[in-house]
Amino acid sequence: MTSAKTTRRTVLAGAAATAALGLTAGTANAGTRGPRIGILLYDGFSLLDPTGPAEVLSRLPGATVTMIAEHRGPVRTDTRQAAVLAERSVAEVDRLDVLLVPGAGNRGTVAAMRNPVLLDWIRRVDKHTTWTTSVCTGSLILGAAGLLRDRATTYWASADYLESTFGVRYVPERYVRAGKIITAAGVSAGIDLALYLASLLAGDDVARGIQLAVEYDPRPPFDAGNAATASPELKALALRLLAESQH
Amino acid sequence: MTSAKTTRRTVLAGAAATAALGLTAGTANAGTRGPRIGILLYDGFSLLDPTGPAEVLSRLPGATVTMIAEHRGPVRTDTRQAAVLAERSVAEVDRLDVLLVPGAGNRGTVAAMRNPVLLDWIRRVDKHTTWTTSVCTGSLILGAAGLLRDRATTYWASADYLESTFGVRYVPERYVRAGKIITAAGVSAGIDLALYLASLLAGDDVARGIQLAVEYDPRPPFDAGNAATASPELKALALRLLAESQH
Repeated sequence: MTSAKTTRRTVLAGAAATAALGLTAGTANAGTRGPRIGILLYDGFSLLDPTGPAEVLSRLPGATVTMIAEHRGPVRTDTRQAAVLAERSVAEVDRLDVLLVPGAGNRGTVAAMRNPVLLDWIRRVDKHTTWTTSVCTGSLILGAAGLLRDRATTYWASADYLESTFGVRYVPERYVRAGKIITAAGVSAGIDLALYLASLLAGDDVARGIQLAVEYDPRPPFDAGNAATASPELKALALRLLAESQH
Repeated sequence: MTSAKTTRRTVLAGAAATAALGLTAGTANAGTRGPRIGILLYDGFSLLDPTGPAEVLSRLPGATVTMIAEHRGPVRTDTRQAAVLAERSVAEVDRLDVLLVPGAGNRGTVAAMRNPVLLDWIRRVDKHTTWTTSVCTGSLILGAAGLLRDRATTYWASADYLESTFGVRYVPERYVRAGKIITAAGVSAGIDLALYLASLLAGDDVARGIQLAVEYDPRPPFDAGNAATASPELKALALRLLAESQH
């Protein structure tokens, strides 16, 4: 890369720039510029579950990242204090390269697991995806759609439920791949999943470039995010803070 | 905490549960249940900048987290592919305990830095905040509002601009506190900032509880998020991926 090219970066755009860089999206869809990524929103989702991965995946060359819900329009989070716009309804989308199903609080997760419109759509879209993925309790929704096999991860507090309900082994990793299904652990794990997906879709160099683009060099002020090493008291506090903030 | 109390957590709600836990929000506002947190949205913001902190801060006992913009309604991100709803206009909000200004791509940052309505509102609200904060290039907007002193951080690629424009020292940390102004580094650093803010507002135990609540035990598949150790080629790639995805 020459400095002249770097200077030009603000005027480079779209497919020409992608070609000039020698970057390819790495999907099986030759007809599109890059991967078609769809993120399913539903009432009561947790805000970071879809937005962390969307931030990362939207930097893939030529990618489209579309927020999708049963109906177009604002979809409220578990706190009811924020809403993200669904740009398309499920009826408008039948082909995706990547599907991502975020997690939610109890109310949202249970409602989605019982919603035949969402489950039917997930099954239909999954037939043609390259990767079908979830964050947090989104894996329970994939399970309800009949898509989990062998092993998966989920929110730490939902591990027993995952194993007993869907007969899969809970693996306490940030993301777990089983065939073309990739599940991520709770909430913030969607960012790690998305970087892994970026590497699968466009190669390690692009994934590293995206990691730097979002300055993802995590330095949490505490070391309290791992349930395997958390005290019972801290786990109880975490669940109580969640329950009190979800409505 | 007894197991009986843990079992009751799903029926405990709001102020009673907060009192039962002995948790206090730690703000100076005795009239409210918890901190009033406002996040400023503006056209072209980067999706994770406000949503990462909102996810964390919304778990603070009694907190309200409000998305605010010049006008109510959907506000589009830098990619133009997603939108978050502004629940309130700036004209409707004049008191906050915490203000957070997210970052954006070039277009959004420059427009916000030149928008007198936003800058006047930031200055007015800052008079009464406990903490005035930013993520990524949001610190440049705080600078344009005249609020930066001494030292700050920002997106790695904006460090020279920050120093030369506002006469403050760039500190390459995840978040930097200078008086009541706390600035965070790029995009994902807002999550680390928010946990730090949680500890300031409600104590270290609650911050740790929130970290576990969002399972923030980061394990990125690569180690490429730190600009200080990145190659010139990786930096150029990161900026190019950003420029190509922003419209």
